[in-house]
Amino acid sequence: MKIGILTIGNELTSGRTQDTNASFLARAFSTQGWQVMLIMSVGDEDEAIKQALGYILARSDAVVVTGGLGPTADDITTEAIARAFGLGLYTDDAVLRHIREIFDKYRLSWTENNAKQAIFPEGAEVIANPVGTAAGFALKQKGKLIAVIPGVPREIGRMLPEGVLPLLRREFPEAAQHVAVRTIKSFGLSEAAVDKALADLDFERLGIRIGFYPNFPENHIVLTATGGLESETAARISAAEAGVVSRLQKYVFAYDGDTLEGLVAKMLTEKGWTLAVAESCTGGLVTDRLTDVPGSSAFLERTVVTYSNAAKTELLGVPADVLEEHGAVSEQTARLMAQGVRKLARTDLGLAITGIAGPAGGTSQKPVGTVHIALDDGKECLCRHYAFRWDRRRNKIISSQAALMMLKRYLTGEREDA
Amino acid sequence: MKIGILTIGNELTSGRTQDTNASFLARAFSTQGWQVMLIMSVGDEDEAIKQALGYILARSDAVVVTGGLGPTADDITTEAIARAFGLGLYTDDAVLRHIREIFDKYRLSWTENNAKQAIFPEGAEVIANPVGTAAGFALKQKGKLIAVIPGVPREIGRMLPEGVLPLLRREFPEAAQHVAVRTIKSFGLSEAAVDKALADLDFERLGIRIGFYPNFPENHIVLTATGGLESETAARISAAEAGVVSRLQKYVFAYDGDTLEGLVAKMLTEKGWTLAVAESCTGGLVTDRLTDVPGSSAFLERTVVTYSNAAKTELLGVPADVLEEHGAVSEQTARLMAQGVRKLARTDLGLAITGIAGPAGGTSQKPVGTVHIALDDGKECLCRHYAFRWDRRRNKIISSQAALMMLKRYLTGEREDA
Repeated sequence: MKIGILTIGNELTSGRTQDTNASFLARAFSTQGWQVMLIMSVGDEDEAIKQALGYILARSDAVVVTGGLGPTADDITTEAIARAFGLGLYTDDAVLRHIREIFDKYRLSWTENNAKQAIFPEGAEVIANPVGTAAGFALKQKGKLIAVIPGVPREIGRMLPEGVLPLLRREFPEAAQHVAVRTIKSFGLSEAAVDKALADLDFERLGIRIGFYPNFPENHIVLTATGGLESETAARISAAEAGVVSRLQKYVFAYDGDTLEGLVAKMLTEKGWTLAVAESCTGGLVTDRLTDVPGSSAFLERTVVTYSNAAKTELLGVPADVLEEHGAVSEQTARLMAQGVRKLARTDLGLAITGIAGPAGGTSQKPVGTVHIALDDGKECLCRHYAFRWDRRRNKIISSQAALMMLKRYLTGEREDA
Repeated sequence: MKIGILTIGNELTSGRTQDTNASFLARAFSTQGWQVMLIMSVGDEDEAIKQALGYILARSDAVVVTGGLGPTADDITTEAIARAFGLGLYTDDAVLRHIREIFDKYRLSWTENNAKQAIFPEGAEVIANPVGTAAGFALKQKGKLIAVIPGVPREIGRMLPEGVLPLLRREFPEAAQHVAVRTIKSFGLSEAAVDKALADLDFERLGIRIGFYPNFPENHIVLTATGGLESETAARISAAEAGVVSRLQKYVFAYDGDTLEGLVAKMLTEKGWTLAVAESCTGGLVTDRLTDVPGSSAFLERTVVTYSNAAKTELLGVPADVLEEHGAVSEQTARLMAQGVRKLARTDLGLAITGIAGPAGGTSQKPVGTVHIALDDGKECLCRHYAFRWDRRRNKIISSQAALMMLKRYLTGEREDA
């Protein structure tokens, strides 16, 4: 099936907002085995929307449109699409009730412009929005399908799999083949290194499409098999997955929707172990990630972000002379921080990160990106040294990832190599 | 001037790579006061490129094309554009020498396919690439300009200001208009409420374009004025800005590229004041944001993420009976946390956040989203209660924003209303 993507919004053509929806949708469609013919972005302008739809539909079986479904005057997508196909508008009472319920539930004051989000082109099929007030809709015109959803990424994340994909499969039987998808998440190898490690695998022979999706600091490998029988596509995926995992080994840390922090949280909770964290260069990011997992209070006792040397000494017991002699960014300090926070919090594990995020603070001996990570369990203290090479934010992100990876490998009983 | 953007590459239509070039170019052109009519992405395919150029040039005075100028077989942009306009190809000897010099300098081994990067459509003007081997080129066809540059962001960063913009200004004298842009960032009002608050302002009469850009949990209002004289566009922007600020008042917290954490960091650094933070439901996010600002170690002494009650008592001195009687999520606890962390760290200010991020942990008395934020300076302790209504991640984000807003208002001497 051929498909096009149209993203609408002055914030896109003015460059004020990075369009992440187009690439999210393109990836989802490619994964289904559909061919994305083109991606277009236009402003909130009636004639531009109409012409773009015409251009895309002349080259595709379907178009998915995002954006311009808000309650304000500059959101004109619904009217523009109705006009493009010469359709009138109607108010969907069920959607209107749903919007009013959301307003009541959260005690928001109702203004009449919000009723606009219950208006649809005649003949449209509503696509429910389980996480917001802007419902989407689909139209079938001359055998082509037009599906329209809001531009809020969080809402698209739900409406695409729950609404849009099933609808496209229903309308285009050739798109309804069984698709098995497996995402393998790796960390620690560059994209080129992943590519090289998998070079000898003959995915074509296995009937598998492979895609590489860098997602800093992770690299995701997506395997897709299309066919008539679920058992058969699943078998092909398993064979390909075994090949990938045997090549990438310890760099693989998760599959499909699992996250690194989610896996760590699950293992700690299952074991009934507790954790305390001492962060320096990551500035709380490790803990922010862990506490994104619901129920993290079951294992996370406390974290200290010891930005000053005084805090490292007072809270964690890192002696001033160690900081003086070896520096706050050193293996010695990292180990003492991990041990210190574990003792302070009386937890099973203590995790510590100290490093230089940049842009300032680097030296020739310890350049920006120098990071030491230590994990202490009261019996032994693992410690690793890293040399990252990114900007401040990315150094924080990749350091938090390395710290969570160390914790995950410890919990699964994998041995760290130095 | 009307302009279009065409980005070329299979990595874009497959969703493998996020297209950051389109939004970078769109912003640069909008800032010049040029109207970006549309952005399109197509794969490395001859006919798709030809048709896209036709569509864009029918609606624009110029098109800027990126991508597909590499030395490998799948890079076909130059040939496709030459064919689209019925032009032959020629080798530019100066460019060829430049490429060979780069190979010599870095001792790269020369292969014949690299000579491809010195081939251009007949009549093209070369756009120099000071940081790579892929030169760009420009063509004038029927009064329209086609400028083509590589897809590497670092190279575009140089070739846009040094090559493409001067060329467009030379070819389109009307493109030399002055443009003034002002972004006003607000927090605490919904998009609909912002819209309503500004409804009586006649932006058209002021010759101002207005755009709303929700950026959770912030709402951004962008004002744009285009005209001949810098002083005149600036005056119109100022008048419109005054109108917006008088309507939104305390909800406005920053302008243009400034961030909330950046402003707070700047003020703390300028005053020479120090800060310690005690986080509970935000799980380190307030500190993560503050430490994204380079130089934040100047004011941030330490943070404690006291997820357990024991940590609140031991580190912050919150008495167990207060936790028992009022609960960890209470005004009393928030105040004691702020006072406690300030004393612990001996800083000028102590900031504390305690709440229920969800999805579990809520009660009818204290539903999910209940948050208390306190700020203590040793003389007085401000405290506010919030009732947010989002999912876990968003409750964390909006709580961190509210905490930084309280800090910002304190630092600018604004009084919090209860």
